[in-house]
Amino acid sequence: MTASPKRLSPGATIGILGGGQLGRMLALAAARLGFRTHIYCPDVKSPAFDVTRDFTIAPYEDESALMLFADSVDVVTYEFENVPARTAAIVARQKPLYPDAKALETTQDRLTEKSWINGLGIPTARFAPVNDRASLAKAVGHVGRPAVLKTRRFGYDGKGQIMLREGLDLDAAWGLIGRQPSILEAFVPFEREVSVVAARGLDGSFAAWDVAENHHENHILKTTSIPARISPDASASAVDCARRIAESLSYVGVLAVEMFVTRNSQGTEEILVNEIAPRVHNSGHWTQDGAVTCQFEQHIRAIAGWPLGGTARRGRTEMTNLIGDEVLDLDRWLEDPRASLHLYGKTEVRAGRKMGHITRVLPEEDAG
Amino acid sequence: MTASPKRLSPGATIGILGGGQLGRMLALAAARLGFRTHIYCPDVKSPAFDVTRDFTIAPYEDESALMLFADSVDVVTYEFENVPARTAAIVARQKPLYPDAKALETTQDRLTEKSWINGLGIPTARFAPVNDRASLAKAVGHVGRPAVLKTRRFGYDGKGQIMLREGLDLDAAWGLIGRQPSILEAFVPFEREVSVVAARGLDGSFAAWDVAENHHENHILKTTSIPARISPDASASAVDCARRIAESLSYVGVLAVEMFVTRNSQGTEEILVNEIAPRVHNSGHWTQDGAVTCQFEQHIRAIAGWPLGGTARRGRTEMTNLIGDEVLDLDRWLEDPRASLHLYGKTEVRAGRKMGHITRVLPEEDAG
Repeated sequence: MTASPKRLSPGATIGILGGGQLGRMLALAAARLGFRTHIYCPDVKSPAFDVTRDFTIAPYEDESALMLFADSVDVVTYEFENVPARTAAIVARQKPLYPDAKALETTQDRLTEKSWINGLGIPTARFAPVNDRASLAKAVGHVGRPAVLKTRRFGYDGKGQIMLREGLDLDAAWGLIGRQPSILEAFVPFEREVSVVAARGLDGSFAAWDVAENHHENHILKTTSIPARISPDASASAVDCARRIAESLSYVGVLAVEMFVTRNSQGTEEILVNEIAPRVHNSGHWTQDGAVTCQFEQHIRAIAGWPLGGTARRGRTEMTNLIGDEVLDLDRWLEDPRASLHLYGKTEVRAGRKMGHITRVLPEEDAG
Repeated sequence: MTASPKRLSPGATIGILGGGQLGRMLALAAARLGFRTHIYCPDVKSPAFDVTRDFTIAPYEDESALMLFADSVDVVTYEFENVPARTAAIVARQKPLYPDAKALETTQDRLTEKSWINGLGIPTARFAPVNDRASLAKAVGHVGRPAVLKTRRFGYDGKGQIMLREGLDLDAAWGLIGRQPSILEAFVPFEREVSVVAARGLDGSFAAWDVAENHHENHILKTTSIPARISPDASASAVDCARRIAESLSYVGVLAVEMFVTRNSQGTEEILVNEIAPRVHNSGHWTQDGAVTCQFEQHIRAIAGWPLGGTARRGRTEMTNLIGDEVLDLDRWLEDPRASLHLYGKTEVRAGRKMGHITRVLPEEDAG
């Protein structure tokens, strides 16, 4: 391998903030490439701790623990976008942090994120800031109903958002959202939800997988199908949005861009960006079996300064999340000769908790 | 999942004797299925220790360490066939050991192994026992030259064997092999070397991957190509040999059967079994990317009492070992959009040491 100050050699150690299933699958991918990992997570039951020799159990606010952690690794990444700014700053003083603080700042706050996306010339749903009860009324005037009121920070899987239909009292809505800084977004009567999972390397190279079509149940991703049933033009446009976002952030690593596909009055598909995840993403899990390089390996390649891997798909692919007690009934999947099972090693089954997923790679000719 | 006394639930712990690359890849596969692992190996630098939370560094003769290890796990398996009989017995007193002691006894000694294979009606090269200088002369009379003189135990990658050509003095040969119990095998003028990697489940189910064609350099596996360039009849016959071997041993787990393909005077291919590896095998590494279920996951499924996974291949596949300092030049592989890299986390590069491997899955229509 050619020498480069930013390029890691096999045997180097990747630091990962966060010990959930994404951290776990990043660690497994790092191991396949010959790297060691050090997982940092406050939760003693973190499933990622099972697959690495080095881990730290400490709060994200513990400066001395963070400094020891950063000292022991060669590069730091994370599995979740809500890494506190101070945590990121402490780590980044000592070691490269990818994706960097700018990616975190841009995506942690829905208002900042959407404004920034529009600033790139990429369309989103109409939105307006909501800082107090008065601005909520003003926002409804601007955005209309139905609309979705979302907290600006810390929302995921439908948490921290409520639907504002005709008739819902604004006082009640403001109370339900917890009277905190929010954003009102026009409800998009979408035809499909899709996502682009892509990577940008340290050298600026960019590689996307095929556009994925996502189906949510109870605000939680249930299935992903590849390829999405959209036109080649819409697909190219979706990938182009992801590329512009990655390039504008000088991004390093894997990112996911969630999008709505709508159809305008001329019958043409239009893409609206919904949100950016500066990390590996559930809608990219299909790549573990359905593509030459999976998103976890690609992320490790990118932050290690290695060339990005091939993203060609191996077939039409379906990914199904196992949520809550669905994980107790594995036989239908274990006996399916086309299914690959991925479990996260979580000891406690809870309603709504992502416990594992299944991928099925099907021949292209079965499509339809 | 249906309850069964022998069937493990996710979260159970798999004990693995041996901490090399095979143990490491078994541990990674176990993690994907939601299992924990505990690796037992005397070598403090074992690469498998990097991917598990629980490991024991102790000799294979340490009875109390073995008992503590067995006590901490739900089932025990191993990555190498030379597990001492006493080690296996200590462990098996406490927990299920798969594959069992019979598989180890049958395959640890080349003479026992070949006699047993012939006893099943499966052909091997002609062979004769060599216990001393006098029986070497007798064996040469029976087997002829060229022939290969091999120690009965502990040979691998060409170690513990010498070629007995015309003219080599038998006193010299007997000295070279270390005057130890040996076997003389007729040299087989083979057309190809192939292997069948297959699994047998706790329920007696059997599943083989497509027959693999192997190329050795300096007695070390260099490449595996799938499918092997043999006739459908020869392929069926090869898989049938593996099935009969697995069934006769009441085998549980993945096994590999190495075979020679020769052509008789009528031009028909004939299969001779060379040896059995009661474990995952280098010639099955292609399944990591080239098949629905890889050999490591299949082994874990089998010893966990789970249904075997599908073995269909995803395309024509090539596996290339990275041996010694070949691992220092990764760019040609990292920049190949069809190549998947697997490194073993070994810190020291030595000549002849297996450091990693590459798989490439190609469309079937590229065949030729």
